[in-house]
Amino acid sequence: MSSARPPRIDVVGVDADDTLWHNETYFAEAQATFVQILAPWTPEGEDVLALHDATERRNLELFGYGIKGFTLSMVETAIEVSRGEVSTSAIAELIRIGKEMLAHPVELLDGVAEAIDALAEDHRLVLITKGDLIHQETKIARSGLADRFERIEIVSEKDPATYKAILDRMDVTPERFCMVGNSVRSDVLPVLELGGCAVHVPYAITWSHEVVDEQGADAFPVLASLGDLATWLRSAPPSAR
Amino acid sequence: MSSARPPRIDVVGVDADDTLWHNETYFAEAQATFVQILAPWTPEGEDVLALHDATERRNLELFGYGIKGFTLSMVETAIEVSRGEVSTSAIAELIRIGKEMLAHPVELLDGVAEAIDALAEDHRLVLITKGDLIHQETKIARSGLADRFERIEIVSEKDPATYKAILDRMDVTPERFCMVGNSVRSDVLPVLELGGCAVHVPYAITWSHEVVDEQGADAFPVLASLGDLATWLRSAPPSAR
Repeated sequence: MSSARPPRIDVVGVDADDTLWHNETYFAEAQATFVQILAPWTPEGEDVLALHDATERRNLELFGYGIKGFTLSMVETAIEVSRGEVSTSAIAELIRIGKEMLAHPVELLDGVAEAIDALAEDHRLVLITKGDLIHQETKIARSGLADRFERIEIVSEKDPATYKAILDRMDVTPERFCMVGNSVRSDVLPVLELGGCAVHVPYAITWSHEVVDEQGADAFPVLASLGDLATWLRSAPPSAR
Repeated sequence: MSSARPPRIDVVGVDADDTLWHNETYFAEAQATFVQILAPWTPEGEDVLALHDATERRNLELFGYGIKGFTLSMVETAIEVSRGEVSTSAIAELIRIGKEMLAHPVELLDGVAEAIDALAEDHRLVLITKGDLIHQETKIARSGLADRFERIEIVSEKDPATYKAILDRMDVTPERFCMVGNSVRSDVLPVLELGGCAVHVPYAITWSHEVVDEQGADAFPVLASLGDLATWLRSAPPSAR
């Protein structure tokens, strides 16, 4: 055991979508329905999802993250794939899918409420989520977890500058901050770049936009569930943090 | 002159859309184009804009404020008005209109930069705007005004609870806060309800959703331009504040 006292983590940042509650699953279901709806107008060999993905990425700067942009990109892709032949009832159906996603109940991941309570015993907590303002607020309210967090930060992008601003507002240095989330790209790498601690808790599905080359995966710890984090923060050797 | 010292306004809250920069004008232009595009499929006597307005209000809880929801509501209305007969190229055109609005340059109202500088001499400033997170951030960045404000608050709704939370975060009481904006419904009434001061600076066009019965209009001051506010705050009798 090292004699040096490990730096204590004061603040734990927690991602929301696919870390506290299910999210990517609904996108995957929506995309499967999208492919089915478009099937009558899809030319042989055309990859509808690859086209939708390309449309979403192209629109990201204007639309930002979230279901409204996802839905507009579905409509755009439907017209493109079908060479304009898609029916208006199919387009109305795509908008209905988007609305259903927005109205979907929040389903917490197993053990999340207990995991947050355990973290709150030793740490100040901040929820950090990117995406659509009103939809994230709605989900946070529906989750019943809002009052566990000292702050709730809904941001348009999770880059080092965003994290730096949040840490400044909370008056904490990166050495005393640990972020946890399911996205290596958004929750882990930018926090490591700042000199903070970051823990990856993978979700079953990762959106292609969030997939990164994980060659350097040794550089950060991976836990099986959020419920393991409180214990890990108490026991992990400082070098791992 | 009263011998009582008027309560000093510490913090001035400033609305953004149609207070700092033009906004509603672009919506009005988009709607005019929308009516033109739909003309070939619009039954005699059908009020396309009234239908779009009804669709937008119905969708507000799910979509929130902003151009993406406005655009999705245009697509929905187009399919409804045309009884499904609208062409997909017309629908693609509606999405293009939404993207053009999102990409539109920010055009400051006359004298706004000078007005903000004058207010900053005597007051802490906070920008309070509702709408789409990424689009509001983009406009604030493009405006060149961001660094004039101590805080920037992008919110999903401007109600008394929202204003209360902002005042708490800024450690100011309602008596020492004055809000200015073009919307009686969003910028004036909820702040008066809290016991704060609010000043109405009307814009040329008001979105129907923001129109309120102004019977009680005597209850708050109306200024012709934001440039008049700094002087008004210095000279108005306390009762007017």
